Amino acid sequence: MPVGTKGTVKGLTAGDLRSVGAGIVLGNAYHLYLRPGTDVVREAGGIHGFTGWDGPMLTDSGGYQVFSLAHRRKLSEMGVEFSSVYDGSSHYFTPELTTRVQDELGADIAMVLDECPPANASREYHADSLRRTARWAKRCKEAHVREDQALFGIVQGGLHEDLRRESLERTVELDFPGYAVGGLSVGESREEMIRMLSLVAPELPADRPRYFMGIGDPVGILQVIAVGVDMFDCVLPTRLARHGSALTGKGRINLKNASYRRDLEPLDSECSCDTCTGGYSRAYLSHLVRENELLAHRLVTLHNVHFVSELCRQARAAILEGLYGEFVRAWIARYAGRTGDERLSDAAL
Amino acid sequence: MPVGTKGTVKGLTAGDLRSVGAGIVLGNAYHLYLRPGTDVVREAGGIHGFTGWDGPMLTDSGGYQVFSLAHRRKLSEMGVEFSSVYDGSSHYFTPELTTRVQDELGADIAMVLDECPPANASREYHADSLRRTARWAKRCKEAHVREDQALFGIVQGGLHEDLRRESLERTVELDFPGYAVGGLSVGESREEMIRMLSLVAPELPADRPRYFMGIGDPVGILQVIAVGVDMFDCVLPTRLARHGSALTGKGRINLKNASYRRDLEPLDSECSCDTCTGGYSRAYLSHLVRENELLAHRLVTLHNVHFVSELCRQARAAILEGLYGEFVRAWIARYAGRTGDERLSDAAL
Repeated sequence: MPVGTKGTVKGLTAGDLRSVGAGIVLGNAYHLYLRPGTDVVREAGGIHGFTGWDGPMLTDSGGYQVFSLAHRRKLSEMGVEFSSVYDGSSHYFTPELTTRVQDELGADIAMVLDECPPANASREYHADSLRRTARWAKRCKEAHVREDQALFGIVQGGLHEDLRRESLERTVELDFPGYAVGGLSVGESREEMIRMLSLVAPELPADRPRYFMGIGDPVGILQVIAVGVDMFDCVLPTRLARHGSALTGKGRINLKNASYRRDLEPLDSECSCDTCTGGYSRAYLSHLVRENELLAHRLVTLHNVHFVSELCRQARAAILEGLYGEFVRAWIARYAGRTGDERLSDAAL
Repeated sequence: MPVGTKGTVKGLTAGDLRSVGAGIVLGNAYHLYLRPGTDVVREAGGIHGFTGWDGPMLTDSGGYQVFSLAHRRKLSEMGVEFSSVYDGSSHYFTPELTTRVQDELGADIAMVLDECPPANASREYHADSLRRTARWAKRCKEAHVREDQALFGIVQGGLHEDLRRESLERTVELDFPGYAVGGLSVGESREEMIRMLSLVAPELPADRPRYFMGIGDPVGILQVIAVGVDMFDCVLPTRLARHGSALTGKGRINLKNASYRRDLEPLDSECSCDTCTGGYSRAYLSHLVRENELLAHRLVTLHNVHFVSELCRQARAAILEGLYGEFVRAWIARYAGRTGDERLSDAAL
């Protein structure tokens, strides 16, 4: 899922998203609730009508933003008070409120309000937190009335195997139409992340979508698919683009590198996106990136989102053919062969 | 001519420029010479190959930028030494050099190197300057060898009628395939500008294009067309867009105005651009503008450039029907009826 935090995947139109083959787009209840306000989006026909994107859309509840962005917050059983990242104004999210906000935003998939504890929180904190998140999930489910919208539960539990299992059980017993794994990709090593995910993902009901929150680098995507994940989101492909980095089948390239100043090849000669087939050379894109031109952000973002969409299409095809392992090994060898160091740092951005 | 200062009309692709009906695009020899460098553009097949815009293109010589942007400069009969706006490095433009630079950039129309004196320069300065500009024009013409590129002369002379006449005579006797009027729209009143232009434009050869440098507000465009101008450029439509202002048939609107927060109409219900027909409401665009989102700049720029292109198409049709006066009166009454105050301030931006 390309991330459209504030009701836009930065630089791309709905038409662009269709052209790159985005199957679903993520929106952000936290941001849309604060700006332009849920009422404005609702009056425009919900997030589809407001943004012009008529394909599937998911909104997160805002839980992650409340816990990662807020300067100050006050957590209780009832909900969480926080100050707006925009103007410091006070707001109070409860499971009932974020469910209603997402009802009014009108995405196809909504998320329960969860707490995503800091990576360094104690075991006791994680235990208390996952139980509260489960109680909140139950309240979200009870508050959820919109029949044309699926509400997903979220598994937490930090890096503790038993707590992850407990969170899984408490969440699955509420019977959601889909489940997310949250609280990973928040600073732990890639190995720890995959170990914990491998424990949880296969135990989630096989007939419900499994959504891993927050992975977007190509190798990471292939890894989480391997352990059974169906959906994921990350700002990485779009944020990389705005920093002048393009994803290619032979690794990530940084267009600020001097070697691209006179490179007349497209970003990726095997890519079929509008940027790569539109006659835009690395030399031109490199110039636009250096000059911080709007068109650089747009053209490289379009390419990166297309690249990740295409990777997912290829992964799906390989799975259907029963050749996923072979596909991944060959793909990573080609991708990482040239920029193994960059691959390892993908997770850092 | 939409302005593509650094080899890009900010936010728009070549495809966008075609879709808005841009007949010709302006590039900037000063900027391209410094970044990415003339050699890089030449190796990419010139400015057309480099940018992907395959329609007509004009480059200015850089004269205006040398005199308006440079922190320090040293002018002599031979040429002008200046420091780069990018890094302060020293460069030396001569008529021969800017002609060769534009030869290598490969636009369809190149401009002679001229001096655009400051608005408050003395009469004596203007007299000396226009004579030097005429001598430079002769040197440019002698240095110009590219047969698939037209080189235009530039008339200067400040706000002095006799100096304008002298500059006109000195430039026209060099027999260029097109002529520009420079040194106006640089701080004088709109009335002074039109008075001076009215003196010069009709005296330029009727069988050659007449290019007025630096006008882009709709009313100003209609005014300069009325006195015989065929071509003009200005950053105004694109710069306005990046400030959140959209041009409409009923006047200019500022999307930051609170009244647009819930306005579900398109920017201009009579406009056929991709923004107005693509389902993007003023409410959505207003949100994007407030959040300073890339997509705001792109969608409003696309609209504004389309708006000005369409205005020119309508003006041309009215001229061919012999109804230009009626067209202009009706158009301005509708445009300025609502925002007469904004109309007057258009020139200020």
